[in-house]
Amino acid sequence: MNSIIWSKFKLSLLDQRLLPLEVKYIECTSYLQVAEAIKNMVVRGAPAIGIAAAYGVVLGAREVFSNNATEYEKNMQKVFETLASTRPTAVNLFWALNRMKDKFYSSLKSDLNKVIETLEKEANSIYLEDLELNKKIGEYGASLLPNKCTVLTHCNAGALATAGWGTALGVIRSAKQMGKDIKVFADETRPLLQGARLTTFELLNDGIDVTLISDNMAGYVMKLGLIDAVIVGADRIAANGDTANKIGTYALSVLAKAHKIPFYVAAPYSTFDLNIKNGDEIPIEERNHDEVRKIFDVKIAPENVKVFNPSFDITPHENITAIITDRGIIYPPYEENIKIMR
Amino acid sequence: MNSIIWSKFKLSLLDQRLLPLEVKYIECTSYLQVAEAIKNMVVRGAPAIGIAAAYGVVLGAREVFSNNATEYEKNMQKVFETLASTRPTAVNLFWALNRMKDKFYSSLKSDLNKVIETLEKEANSIYLEDLELNKKIGEYGASLLPNKCTVLTHCNAGALATAGWGTALGVIRSAKQMGKDIKVFADETRPLLQGARLTTFELLNDGIDVTLISDNMAGYVMKLGLIDAVIVGADRIAANGDTANKIGTYALSVLAKAHKIPFYVAAPYSTFDLNIKNGDEIPIEERNHDEVRKIFDVKIAPENVKVFNPSFDITPHENITAIITDRGIIYPPYEENIKIMR
Repeated sequence: MNSIIWSKFKLSLLDQRLLPLEVKYIECTSYLQVAEAIKNMVVRGAPAIGIAAAYGVVLGAREVFSNNATEYEKNMQKVFETLASTRPTAVNLFWALNRMKDKFYSSLKSDLNKVIETLEKEANSIYLEDLELNKKIGEYGASLLPNKCTVLTHCNAGALATAGWGTALGVIRSAKQMGKDIKVFADETRPLLQGARLTTFELLNDGIDVTLISDNMAGYVMKLGLIDAVIVGADRIAANGDTANKIGTYALSVLAKAHKIPFYVAAPYSTFDLNIKNGDEIPIEERNHDEVRKIFDVKIAPENVKVFNPSFDITPHENITAIITDRGIIYPPYEENIKIMR
Repeated sequence: MNSIIWSKFKLSLLDQRLLPLEVKYIECTSYLQVAEAIKNMVVRGAPAIGIAAAYGVVLGAREVFSNNATEYEKNMQKVFETLASTRPTAVNLFWALNRMKDKFYSSLKSDLNKVIETLEKEANSIYLEDLELNKKIGEYGASLLPNKCTVLTHCNAGALATAGWGTALGVIRSAKQMGKDIKVFADETRPLLQGARLTTFELLNDGIDVTLISDNMAGYVMKLGLIDAVIVGADRIAANGDTANKIGTYALSVLAKAHKIPFYVAAPYSTFDLNIKNGDEIPIEERNHDEVRKIFDVKIAPENVKVFNPSFDITPHENITAIITDRGIIYPPYEENIKIMR
């Protein structure tokens, strides 16, 4: 099941808010629809957001086309800005938009009538590269896991969050493919329940042994000795290795450290933001408070109660055993070793 | 709003599963109804369970009455067993049943026709004593808090979980009453959302500043420096201070320690089980898996996904800064200091 399907000027996005209860695609034919879909989390997961935004640029390039290069450039600025303003934390969004922007400007200088085609090719490349990257992440990561092991994961860093295969779940899939005996505990991941809804769904479909727990059970499950490794994805990684990922990841890293369990981050190299020194500089999105007050439109708290709803948190590099990328496994000291891979 | 109301041979239990959306009492006129209500968590919270069970004994004593003492005794054994088998972890249940059992046997020896009246008096005492104990816990606990502080709490150890005032929330209420500037972060407490549904409801009603968070946000909120103390209730405390409380408490204790935040347990002295050496011996209830797969009957995960649903976990005494009881504040070394209070 693909979360993103492109067919000439139509981007079909699997509505991940409805899974696993309903399988429904939302069709976008304009860049504004794509921006809305990213903002509302129809499509989510750092790499998938980047891919969707890239296709959004293609749609936009067609919608705001002008034979006048200066006007076209001005129009496209708005397209880029709109797509960039959808979500602040995942850097893959900005990385993909920058790739598309570079292509736009270079093709603008050559043949105006080939701009859209060039952009479409670039978006397709981003998509296809992501699939390959995930396979590499999977292989590198799987090499870290013992032949028999149980992994705890948080949120969904799976096929649905990427072009396919997944980052954290890619590691698990690759380990299974290598013949390793792998079991998974999946945190449900409140407020939007990506673990309960998406990760269990993906793993069950692949016949991988998965057990669902509430987020607050992770510490106890570690204490019981049931977990051999924690693997999570990432939305942005600073130059020193500090990692932004779904809210709750930080607590897991503290718990893993206290239980001497290795804590791995799996992400494509494009998740690094080397312009940012450390996690303090990563913007953390705070989302609508009703995400916490309600579950699937069912009220679970008094309407007027105050809420704090950060979508992400920062895991300090000291808590990370290794970062698994498509370019290889990066160990501490991160500041140096991340640069080496550039 | 009282969670337990007794009027001659009718026990009205506030259905805490429906709060805050609906305020509805379930009326029990038989001990079996009380047992069901405890099992299904119509009534919950360790002290409240004990009180409800005590009144269940009164109802049972009337239902199975016999003029033949031997037969009455045999009938009552079934009543005690049924009520004792409802939930395994909270020791207050067994403590209350033992008090009722002692009264039953002593009154059986005197006047058979006064047994029911005697048992009713004892149940009323358990109820009224609990209210007083909570006030004492509140006063002792509040003395530990600075004049301006923010407390994180988990689950609901409030008026609803007791005869009134509450244990952990009692401390917060007493601190407010003393004029302290106190704010609260409440974990939503999956799977049954006692924090989101009950704690926020209680505190809003009392005009206490409360912010709701998902359980997985607690670590991040601590890291941001927003929390000055963690206060939770307890379902059973072993002789060495190891504490069983709602699932997620253990993880909070690890997180509090990592952030050098004091971690307090507030509970009546009846929560100690001195027959039990340490937390390993406390039975942990595992509840229905649909509690995790669903929220308010709304499916949030694939139907067939495996689930682990322990209702409680054990916080080791090393992670507890102090235990706040009605007899005073107990500090480490717990093994000695708990005995001294006996």
